[in-house]
Amino acid sequence: MKSFNKQKLELAEQSPAELMQARRAHLEKLTKTSLRSISSPSFDISLASTKNCENLIGKTEIPLGFAGPLKVKGDFAKGDFYIPLSTTEGALVASVNRGCKAISKAGGIYVYIEKSGITRAPLFKTNNLRESRQFVTWINLHFKEIATQIENTDKYLKLLSIKPYLTGRNVYLNFTFNTADAMGMNMVTIACDRVIRDYIEKKTKVKCIALSGNLCIDKKPAWKNKIEGRGFSLQADLTIPKGVIKEVLKVDVSRIMDVYTRKVLVGSSLSGSIGFNAHHANIVAAIFLATGQDPAHIVEGSLGTTIMEAIGENLYVSVSIPALIVGTVGGGTQLETQKEALTILGVAGGGNPSGTHAKKLAEIIAAAVAAGEISLISALASSDLARAHKSLGRGEKI
Amino acid sequence: MKSFNKQKLELAEQSPAELMQARRAHLEKLTKTSLRSISSPSFDISLASTKNCENLIGKTEIPLGFAGPLKVKGDFAKGDFYIPLSTTEGALVASVNRGCKAISKAGGIYVYIEKSGITRAPLFKTNNLRESRQFVTWINLHFKEIATQIENTDKYLKLLSIKPYLTGRNVYLNFTFNTADAMGMNMVTIACDRVIRDYIEKKTKVKCIALSGNLCIDKKPAWKNKIEGRGFSLQADLTIPKGVIKEVLKVDVSRIMDVYTRKVLVGSSLSGSIGFNAHHANIVAAIFLATGQDPAHIVEGSLGTTIMEAIGENLYVSVSIPALIVGTVGGGTQLETQKEALTILGVAGGGNPSGTHAKKLAEIIAAAVAAGEISLISALASSDLARAHKSLGRGEKI
Amino acid sequence: MKSFNKQKLELAEQSPAELMQARRAHLEKLTKTSLRSISSPSFDISLASTKNCENLIGKTEIPLGFAGPLKVKGDFAKGDFYIPLSTTEGALVASVNRGCKAISKAGGIYVYIEKSGITRAPLFKTNNLRESRQFVTWINLHFKEIATQIENTDKYLKLLSIKPYLTGRNVYLNFTFNTADAMGMNMVTIACDRVIRDYIEKKTKVKCIALSGNLCIDKKPAWKNKIEGRGFSLQADLTIPKGVIKEVLKVDVSRIMDVYTRKVLVGSSLSGSIGFNAHHANIVAAIFLATGQDPAHIVEGSLGTTIMEAIGENLYVSVSIPALIVGTVGGGTQLETQKEALTILGVAGGGNPSGTHAKKLAEIIAAAVAAGEISLISALASSDLARAHKSLGRGEKI
Amino acid sequence: MKSFNKQKLELAEQSPAELMQARRAHLEKLTKTSLRSISSPSFDISLASTKNCENLIGKTEIPLGFAGPLKVKGDFAKGDFYIPLSTTEGALVASVNRGCKAISKAGGIYVYIEKSGITRAPLFKTNNLRESRQFVTWINLHFKEIATQIENTDKYLKLLSIKPYLTGRNVYLNFTFNTADAMGMNMVTIACDRVIRDYIEKKTKVKCIALSGNLCIDKKPAWKNKIEGRGFSLQADLTIPKGVIKEVLKVDVSRIMDVYTRKVLVGSSLSGSIGFNAHHANIVAAIFLATGQDPAHIVEGSLGTTIMEAIGENLYVSVSIPALIVGTVGGGTQLETQKEALTILGVAGGGNPSGTHAKKLAEIIAAAVAAGEISLISALASSDLARAHKSLGRGEKI
Repeated sequence: MKSFNKQKLELAEQSPAELMQARRAHLEKLTKTSLRSISSPSFDISLASTKNCENLIGKTEIPLGFAGPLKVKGDFAKGDFYIPLSTTEGALVASVNRGCKAISKAGGIYVYIEKSGITRAPLFKTNNLRESRQFVTWINLHFKEIATQIENTDKYLKLLSIKPYLTGRNVYLNFTFNTADAMGMNMVTIACDRVIRDYIEKKTKVKCIALSGNLCIDKKPAWKNKIEGRGFSLQADLTIPKGVIKEVLKVDVSRIMDVYTRKVLVGSSLSGSIGFNAHHANIVAAIFLATGQDPAHIVEGSLGTTIMEAIGENLYVSVSIPALIVGTVGGGTQLETQKEALTILGVAGGGNPSGTHAKKLAEIIAAAVAAGEISLISALASSDLARAHKSLGRGEKI
Repeated sequence: MKSFNKQKLELAEQSPAELMQARRAHLEKLTKTSLRSISSPSFDISLASTKNCENLIGKTEIPLGFAGPLKVKGDFAKGDFYIPLSTTEGALVASVNRGCKAISKAGGIYVYIEKSGITRAPLFKTNNLRESRQFVTWINLHFKEIATQIENTDKYLKLLSIKPYLTGRNVYLNFTFNTADAMGMNMVTIACDRVIRDYIEKKTKVKCIALSGNLCIDKKPAWKNKIEGRGFSLQADLTIPKGVIKEVLKVDVSRIMDVYTRKVLVGSSLSGSIGFNAHHANIVAAIFLATGQDPAHIVEGSLGTTIMEAIGENLYVSVSIPALIVGTVGGGTQLETQKEALTILGVAGGGNPSGTHAKKLAEIIAAAVAAGEISLISALASSDLARAHKSLGRGEKI
Repeated sequence: MKSFNKQKLELAEQSPAELMQARRAHLEKLTKTSLRSISSPSFDISLASTKNCENLIGKTEIPLGFAGPLKVKGDFAKGDFYIPLSTTEGALVASVNRGCKAISKAGGIYVYIEKSGITRAPLFKTNNLRESRQFVTWINLHFKEIATQIENTDKYLKLLSIKPYLTGRNVYLNFTFNTADAMGMNMVTIACDRVIRDYIEKKTKVKCIALSGNLCIDKKPAWKNKIEGRGFSLQADLTIPKGVIKEVLKVDVSRIMDVYTRKVLVGSSLSGSIGFNAHHANIVAAIFLATGQDPAHIVEGSLGTTIMEAIGENLYVSVSIPALIVGTVGGGTQLETQKEALTILGVAGGGNPSGTHAKKLAEIIAAAVAAGEISLISALASSDLARAHKSLGRGEKI
Repeated sequence: MKSFNKQKLELAEQSPAELMQARRAHLEKLTKTSLRSISSPSFDISLASTKNCENLIGKTEIPLGFAGPLKVKGDFAKGDFYIPLSTTEGALVASVNRGCKAISKAGGIYVYIEKSGITRAPLFKTNNLRESRQFVTWINLHFKEIATQIENTDKYLKLLSIKPYLTGRNVYLNFTFNTADAMGMNMVTIACDRVIRDYIEKKTKVKCIALSGNLCIDKKPAWKNKIEGRGFSLQADLTIPKGVIKEVLKVDVSRIMDVYTRKVLVGSSLSGSIGFNAHHANIVAAIFLATGQDPAHIVEGSLGTTIMEAIGENLYVSVSIPALIVGTVGGGTQLETQKEALTILGVAGGGNPSGTHAKKLAEIIAAAVAAGEISLISALASSDLARAHKSLGRGEKI
């Protein structure tokens, strides 16, 4: 059998689409399979094969549904939105849809971005603590120079702060950036690399050991991101009147509170969970897939808190999402189906330079997460979770 | 504007595909967009619209690449595998591919399933602790009866244990199941519901407040799942000889260890992370999407530990993944492109009744995660992370 | 200046008391201080200097007060108890006392030990995962032999289980023991050491790297102990009638719940706390010091959960303490003042061989912790925390 | 039996010492015990009974030993120190002493305070998120006024920052203070109470629900304090030459590293521990008891990180202690034996107004913690932990 590398060379003259087909054919032969459905993506193969996915052989298709309208009262997202949701879990779209209905009937949900900033924390090694301390002092004194150099690498990049964490010889510099409408991890990694090589290492003689020292902390579930935030940190709330609870959610506030307190607060605490919620991750995942976000960031998206309180017979609900990492340019957002999903929300491509599209998207996601929480907790309270899964997930009549 | 519900009624006579197109057209009108790319999925619309996604309007396409061959020495996965990876993050496939090469050149990776069992923890409310204690005693005494009833709901379902967690009036019964080749969350939720309504509540008069009390704990990042495991708990290891490190990874063991210890062990600990790894979530996410797993379970997939040790000039590597939640039947696995990806791995559909396909898939994922860890940490150690992202993620020549 | 070692030799013929005085005089000279108050302890100097504290120079005195009577309805502790509390924090004894009054007026508190077992987790290093797996299998197969050997080292020692945790080459064997009335850490460390040297290492050729591998996990705050328990895991509860809340606690149930939910549940969750309580550690600390427990185990004593619920206008309260590590023989319990404090509770020295004194002490502590929680949360709810601290902590008139 | 309250009234004319004896006699009668050893404390009974301990009946005695000399190279602690240690755990003083010897022979340990500030986080309730946001804005705008009012309550008090944490209607304002040589919890609670009642509530009409909302977070083990620090956050390090390792610690660097990595880093991570160390809590506890600190703060003192690295055949060691809560005035520090222990360290009473005594004490504790870590990990590495406990803890010959 000819080696694949050899094969690749021979294919060098071919178009990206031809290369993709050739790779696919090669894999079919190697694995004795027929891979028809994955072929013929509707995205730009040339772009995808260079920017999104090496060794491209085709595409995976995820069913796309929508929920809404969802009335959002944000700083950036104002009005009624239809939420694109990519999912394979029966009942999820229906559930979020019910939550949207409850929210909209209640007059909409207030939402805002408490803070924002994507982080990258390169790791430096000094000879000892005395040097670590001097190094930190030097960094603090030269923040302005570092910021200038970083901001020169990309016009959409703004350095907000550098927060040092140290233990002995290890110094982690947690850089926080504004990256406008881009999610920005690549942009900031490249910018950090440059300023470290060209400036910090040269001036201080302190060696950078790794561009990421896990203090960022990217794609791992960590208390630091819960407490300090990463990407967008959002807050949303509303009060659902008694009538809407009864009509839309088919339950009453006291049963909701009975479930909420024992499950979301007490149950999560006994599990050692960072997230205190019912299923933030489900809604975050479905919108992330629909709109081209990095699915590994669902991890950070799961860290949030849902608050429910009985106010008389009405239900007060808030969700806090400390680390929502999204963008509307770059990465998966440039793929055709994802771009269309962003269009549904009115946030495709870049907004104004301060990142209005990404912020609007973040606010909509927070609102949709609230919809998902309201619906699931109500469903548990009215005992119909298993029934819904049975009828929807397994395709039976409701 | 005609209400969507009204619209739906009129469409009731139409085929699932027609309904999907009508919904899409409706949404285009509502949002003044053109949604061409999302239309015309290759999956079975009738199936997807009833089992995977309500309000279906089309599909999201994710670029699909592959890495490998990856030599795996598991109990279930034996031989060379090509790993399907759905991703939009440039450099990821290339990185995993390099890791596969290092592993295969080193003679392959040993992997096994330490334990398995999916969980569901319904929440009960008693009047006081004395009753909670009696209730727990009753449950322990009637395990056999409960198991029989549960196993009658589904021939692939086996109840392994019921572990009670209580605090005052709140009793969480953590049911653990073997669900063969199915991921099984729906199956076990339905089974729990039935045995609770028909047997436990009737006999004990203790009320189930919610079918899930967050002690499971599903789709939230929690220490309980790290410590006790959920779904499949896997271990994998190998030793990479000095020569392979140099040739494939372009670095040496001492630099890898310098990065590894300070980043993965110390850095994670300072962040309050549950996961002690470089980027398990990336590889888990890419295979989950390719093979139709639930993307919200990437959260649990991020909890793992990577161990690296210098053994002379060779590198010892192990990965532990405590909570990998996968299946090869049901949910997203029945979609066409996902089924093809499973076919590449030889695990499409059900294996034998004990769940050999799901176990094989789990072992392959653990091996691929190791490949991803080896490659990324080596890249950081050889300082080329930013360069790789720049060239691949932004589409420039390497 | 003569070296202290030299000095020690010359003093070798002296009595323990003379040695203590000589050391103290030596230290006074070295540090140019006068150390009169620390001299002349009432405990047995010979015993203390060999079993509790090397380089003995005297004693520290902590003020000892008491709270109560506290009506306890436990399996081991039944009746009214007066709780000895050693503390230097003004207002603590008064606060616990008020809680005792509320509990006793409410008819007492139900308490029981959910499970018990002290742990030690020696750490082994194998050559690879295959060996780790074999080693674990061997351990499981030879549990009985290991138990026999361990139980031969001490008649009060019973091995309950060995639970392996592994990651790659590292195998942590979590031994759990019943140690009767002794706290038992020393006893189990010695027993582990012996069985490892004499049996496990010899038979398996697997090397024990450290007698404790931090999986125990002793004197560090860890989710494992919260979730799985260590030492005694206790549960306690009661319902306080509206009248008692008003009369003793000077507040009403709705204000208590307002504070409780937002502080103990939500506030703790946002802080990344393992303990979900108001101040378990305060009460645990005061009783630990009074009764000769190891003060570093206050760490584990802080991990508990307090639950409060409004039941109409009455208040339901429970406390769960997952890891209370106490004994009534050995260590500090043999010191005179500590023994007297144990006498107050009727638990000095060993009870029957199954450890009834330690269990009774544990139940009393859980009840006292509940008293502390009830009082502090009520005080916060009635806004008088600062006032109490001001008047008591600073010595003013109430 | 006459009620104790009645009894108290009759005793009202008596001196504090007489009252103490009467209470003790009363308790002896009630519990049918003889409490001779706890009587006759050497501390000022009048002071202790009003400021430290209500219902005073006597004292608990803890054996006091010392370790040292320990060479410290801090910003505040410079020179050789003898460390007072109150403990009942045989082997602890001997172990710390060996660590001191290793450090001093290595030329001493560098230590500094990275940051400091005690916190109190009162909890406010608004009507909704919009109000929470406005409230936070108002607080930020009026920081100066709040600081002025707070600083007027106590000349040693300085408000450093107010950091808001919010979720929905709950707003936690985390006040951080400099309290000079006082530990300061009471001082800051009183100051917060006053500024809230007299200013914040009046101006904003937002109600303070509790003076502490568990975001502080006091006496509970929490990631927030690990990550952001509380009280004093310290760093210390040194390199121990090969010769000292061999001579004093009886082991070599490679065996130390084998234990350290697998136990302190990997073992802690698998346990879900916040502390990554061997036994910080032991040393913190012993010095806290000796010097009159609040023993419930041992919880925060257990959160630290120990780093060990082989540098050739030498051993690099650092300890990071994020939340050491100590003072040299107020609370237990004014008791006679505690004051003498502070005198041994040259830090009794207040230093200059910026808190030099408390800072010096904090630095010494960090150095002593390092001594304890070095000794215990070396002991484990040289396999003599069990032997040491056996001979010392049980009083046998070494």
